[in-house]
Amino acid sequence: MCQPDGGGLLSTGQDFTSDNASGASPVVIDALARANSRTALAYGDDPYTADLQAKLADLFEHEVTVLPMFTGTAANALSLSCMAPPFGAVFCHAEAHIFTSECGAPEFFTGGAKLIPLEGAEGRIDPHSFERALAELGKGVAHHFQPAGLSLTQATESGTLYELSRITELAGIAHREGLTVHMDGARLANAVAATKVSLAEMTWQSGIDVLSFGLTKNGGICAEAVIFFNQALASEARFRQKRAGQVASKMRFVSAQILALIEDGLWLDLASHANAMARRLTEGLSAEQITLPAQINEVFLKLTRDTADRLRGEGFMFHPWGVEPKHGECIYRFVTSFATEARDVDALIRALERARR
Amino acid sequence: MCQPDGGGLLSTGQDFTSDNASGASPVVIDALARANSRTALAYGDDPYTADLQAKLADLFEHEVTVLPMFTGTAANALSLSCMAPPFGAVFCHAEAHIFTSECGAPEFFTGGAKLIPLEGAEGRIDPHSFERALAELGKGVAHHFQPAGLSLTQATESGTLYELSRITELAGIAHREGLTVHMDGARLANAVAATKVSLAEMTWQSGIDVLSFGLTKNGGICAEAVIFFNQALASEARFRQKRAGQVASKMRFVSAQILALIEDGLWLDLASHANAMARRLTEGLSAEQITLPAQINEVFLKLTRDTADRLRGEGFMFHPWGVEPKHGECIYRFVTSFATEARDVDALIRALERARR
Amino acid sequence: MCQPDGGGLLSTGQDFTSDNASGASPVVIDALARANSRTALAYGDDPYTADLQAKLADLFEHEVTVLPMFTGTAANALSLSCMAPPFGAVFCHAEAHIFTSECGAPEFFTGGAKLIPLEGAEGRIDPHSFERALAELGKGVAHHFQPAGLSLTQATESGTLYELSRITELAGIAHREGLTVHMDGARLANAVAATKVSLAEMTWQSGIDVLSFGLTKNGGICAEAVIFFNQALASEARFRQKRAGQVASKMRFVSAQILALIEDGLWLDLASHANAMARRLTEGLSAEQITLPAQINEVFLKLTRDTADRLRGEGFMFHPWGVEPKHGECIYRFVTSFATEARDVDALIRALERARR
Amino acid sequence: MCQPDGGGLLSTGQDFTSDNASGASPVVIDALARANSRTALAYGDDPYTADLQAKLADLFEHEVTVLPMFTGTAANALSLSCMAPPFGAVFCHAEAHIFTSECGAPEFFTGGAKLIPLEGAEGRIDPHSFERALAELGKGVAHHFQPAGLSLTQATESGTLYELSRITELAGIAHREGLTVHMDGARLANAVAATKVSLAEMTWQSGIDVLSFGLTKNGGICAEAVIFFNQALASEARFRQKRAGQVASKMRFVSAQILALIEDGLWLDLASHANAMARRLTEGLSAEQITLPAQINEVFLKLTRDTADRLRGEGFMFHPWGVEPKHGECIYRFVTSFATEARDVDALIRALERARR
Repeated sequence: MCQPDGGGLLSTGQDFTSDNASGASPVVIDALARANSRTALAYGDDPYTADLQAKLADLFEHEVTVLPMFTGTAANALSLSCMAPPFGAVFCHAEAHIFTSECGAPEFFTGGAKLIPLEGAEGRIDPHSFERALAELGKGVAHHFQPAGLSLTQATESGTLYELSRITELAGIAHREGLTVHMDGARLANAVAATKVSLAEMTWQSGIDVLSFGLTKNGGICAEAVIFFNQALASEARFRQKRAGQVASKMRFVSAQILALIEDGLWLDLASHANAMARRLTEGLSAEQITLPAQINEVFLKLTRDTADRLRGEGFMFHPWGVEPKHGECIYRFVTSFATEARDVDALIRALERARR
Repeated sequence: MCQPDGGGLLSTGQDFTSDNASGASPVVIDALARANSRTALAYGDDPYTADLQAKLADLFEHEVTVLPMFTGTAANALSLSCMAPPFGAVFCHAEAHIFTSECGAPEFFTGGAKLIPLEGAEGRIDPHSFERALAELGKGVAHHFQPAGLSLTQATESGTLYELSRITELAGIAHREGLTVHMDGARLANAVAATKVSLAEMTWQSGIDVLSFGLTKNGGICAEAVIFFNQALASEARFRQKRAGQVASKMRFVSAQILALIEDGLWLDLASHANAMARRLTEGLSAEQITLPAQINEVFLKLTRDTADRLRGEGFMFHPWGVEPKHGECIYRFVTSFATEARDVDALIRALERARR
Repeated sequence: MCQPDGGGLLSTGQDFTSDNASGASPVVIDALARANSRTALAYGDDPYTADLQAKLADLFEHEVTVLPMFTGTAANALSLSCMAPPFGAVFCHAEAHIFTSECGAPEFFTGGAKLIPLEGAEGRIDPHSFERALAELGKGVAHHFQPAGLSLTQATESGTLYELSRITELAGIAHREGLTVHMDGARLANAVAATKVSLAEMTWQSGIDVLSFGLTKNGGICAEAVIFFNQALASEARFRQKRAGQVASKMRFVSAQILALIEDGLWLDLASHANAMARRLTEGLSAEQITLPAQINEVFLKLTRDTADRLRGEGFMFHPWGVEPKHGECIYRFVTSFATEARDVDALIRALERARR
Repeated sequence: MCQPDGGGLLSTGQDFTSDNASGASPVVIDALARANSRTALAYGDDPYTADLQAKLADLFEHEVTVLPMFTGTAANALSLSCMAPPFGAVFCHAEAHIFTSECGAPEFFTGGAKLIPLEGAEGRIDPHSFERALAELGKGVAHHFQPAGLSLTQATESGTLYELSRITELAGIAHREGLTVHMDGARLANAVAATKVSLAEMTWQSGIDVLSFGLTKNGGICAEAVIFFNQALASEARFRQKRAGQVASKMRFVSAQILALIEDGLWLDLASHANAMARRLTEGLSAEQITLPAQINEVFLKLTRDTADRLRGEGFMFHPWGVEPKHGECIYRFVTSFATEARDVDALIRALERARR
């Protein structure tokens, strides 16, 4: 068994459990303080939220409907509920967070829609798997869930990236069959930072209809947004957001976080830093330890149970990530963040060397 | 028609629209900054959230299960979903927020349970109305929703207070019939500040099984908690919280707000101040203007449409609150908060005098 | 207390509990036997169901989409689920079956929509009550359920009839506001028989978008149909029917019942007979005993508890129907059916005379 | 592509599409006629339904709670809704009807629970697959659906049978982990007829908590029942049945069908006949044509597209059943029923010989 990391002790540079173990960027805390100077109407009728709508339209170079949200779980589930009827099917990768880790939030928000898991190497959906699953579903046959949507995760759950051509291909299949396309962008910032592709190219220009834009992992406190490029999907969104308890009473404080992060490209700087720290880690390790190409800020390492225990004995924290199928080795995930420092990475590299001896 | 207040312009001392139009207490912002110094495990496995559990048990003098939440809507709806099956009925006042203003959140979270509105003067449920509704429902008859819960709002939507004896009486009826009892405590702090009754007396000692403890309106950014006194109701709560997208990724930042507010009684000080500002307002007005006894931080005034327009012309902001039944006069609600200053109230009093001439 | 009728003993001519206490017309049983001679594809792909679609289009003089259903509860709830989103509001009379007696089926099928009860004398919705409720709801405001539909019951739960002009008026208000209109026609046959109005006039010509056409109470075994006149509402219906477990495996046996009942106007003959029996009853009684005009096959009588007991002592069966508001007298409902015989009614009249002495 | 059988034309001895393409046993029609002689209270308060409860307790040799239902879809989905919370997981075979063919009824009735598909040869769940899936799910971790139930299909979707030891083993694993166990018995009669095992042994003695007992395919019109052996699961069942629109208005006509079928072992005779007809078919064919052991009344044949076309050209009807994985041959399903005659089977055998030349 590959043991999870116990305890909730406050750590710091030795904590590689996840990027949401880091706190917030000080810029975000400052933004909260600045947004605190006056009164503002509640429930989103405030100038920050209005400004956010305009700023995101600029950033994405497209008309958008923006819903500031508290969590990625809710952003994803709400997006899907605007795409799929209760008898609808949404296709996603078998490792997608919406499929594995949200305790039924998509089923809850949609009123019972079904997620259909697709295969594909390194976390990316294989178009053939998608085509096959579509063919099997039986569109129009009332005995079966009806195809309604496709959800892509960029960057993927495996810390890898979709190339634009793959997104375009998958979205093209979906649109051809009358489905709409969602992107789970919990780490979209890292993807953009890694590829130098614009947000517009990465999303609506590649066929994305609605995006969960996550900035919590990238320096926010609770800074998520559902962003509709396809306005036809947005008509019910505000009502669904309200009944889900996701309309912030003092919404300005969510909007202000996102505004602070997108101002002057801070979100890109933070994500670039996180990516660089992961790159620094992989460069310090031998290739055979690394199970997946580390394209963003996640590094997946094969470690013996012993090695993992020794690392933990030294204070390092990280999560197990299943078992490598071929040789049964345990895989562990190490995540860097905007707050990870180079010396933290270097210390981890040295500890890994020691532990493997 | 009694026109609503338009616009989302940032205001300040002239804004009496609601206590959630105020920002947060600077102490809360500081607490966020302090909670930002290190890493901490995500999703609630952090020391702030553990500490919160312990501190709230002390504050309420009872074993508690605490779920930090983002909004009052979600706190209320989640509470009800732990009390009522999808075919269950929950009784509440006809003016209760859960009945009038949450776009179906209770129905959503419970999977279709029904809210049954009860009558009662000044926002308080009349026990006879409750008994009558219970008798009409037809317990055990499969054609009907089955009685499951009672929800009380303390302080009420009308800015009034339940006496403990009334809470005890209503909860007693509920328990006699096998129902459990929820308290919507969006302004519980104001109620406690006004009555000098302890939180324990106000809640579990009076028969409350589960509480939505709201601190957002009282100086938080997004600082709500579901607090179970009846542990039997809590068994499903964490799963329901997760699937509702209400488990904060960086939960420490919600917990830290609440911790900051309950430390050294800050929550009581803030609520006392808000109450005092409302009292100052009523003391500056003639009795016939006031439609309801202002027991907490809300003042309901009868104003002619003209008077209201003139006040707004001077920059004051406030919400219409329906029409007084007997004479058809418009009623407007003025809410004070922890941030309202005495000079703001005095200016409003003077403006009201001018406007009514 | 007005005691209900106990026991489930088989009765016959003395049973006035409800029209669904009668069995089926022998013609319906014969039709089942005839439909049993060969194989037929399952789940509605059979010639009976195809024929039913055509025959009902003729009968209603309109293009229709027909879904044979097992129960009126399901027919109503399915209809509403095609009209209202989960955050939608459907207006209906406060005594409507969907509001009082279906254990949350509408809330279940719609995923949480809200039924808003309207007032109106003798079971008919008052247009002013509807207008008022619409105005109060707050269309477009995300805090509130959104107006989506209106449901009328013809004949009403009080055994009375809507005039066409009232239906047209109510449907007109609904359509003006963007709502669609449902008719619960559990006793529509009785309404048509009583008024000599055509089915077309009673339904789509008066503004009805979708109808629950009930024939179970009128001689069927389980013979209900959802009939869409507004085809835009029908697009999701078959999928919703399937997931509700309402697509009959051997659907021909539901369709065959309805076909038998509509052939040669049998449904009208049966309903006319039921109505005539109720008329015979009222004509044999003094006017002051009757609380509501008996316009179809239901008679509501004021009886003392003693009188009711004596009647039951003689073997008569009937249900209590609440308490008359002004004088507190118990009201009892007597329902006649296609199977009620004149001598049964005469015996009841005589027994009532004896019992009141 | 393996083409489906088109058209809904009435057929007879050449129809092998499914056992629900057959009509009802004449005994069932007679039972309806006999149940039609008097009035009876509606909604299940009738003597037939009371009698059914007693007779099924005798037949199953156990205390039971019985809910007469209209369809197998609803019986299955209702059963699951009494086992699993909305965040619960129910394990089933990947080919289970509840997983593949009910358009989300289980998700609908449970409020969003998840079906987790398990592998296993010939339609039977492999206990290792179940153990593995249980281990992966993460009991107690709020990010994941929580294990709640196991659903077995006896006979399986592949026309095969579970041995009692396998049922006991699977149910044992489930109970060990706190799950309850459902049996989808759409063709349980065929399984019992084939194995000579008692209903008691096949169900509660092997660990089944709740059963969908299907008699529609075995001679009924709409004759299904949910049967609870574990009374703790039954407490909410009647309310869930009502809100699903599955409480028959004239329930006696559902109950009377089941009573007629279980009287004097008719259900076993009908199922035995259907099984014998399938056996006759397989005995007339060469072994290599048959893809699965035909243990009940379903025969799965490998046919070339040409052969299938020729058979259809002669008037035979049957459904395609996917593609045989190894050689890509089309598989077709032939189902016999209580109404299939020996000469029909012989004619099919001869036609198959002709078609294959």
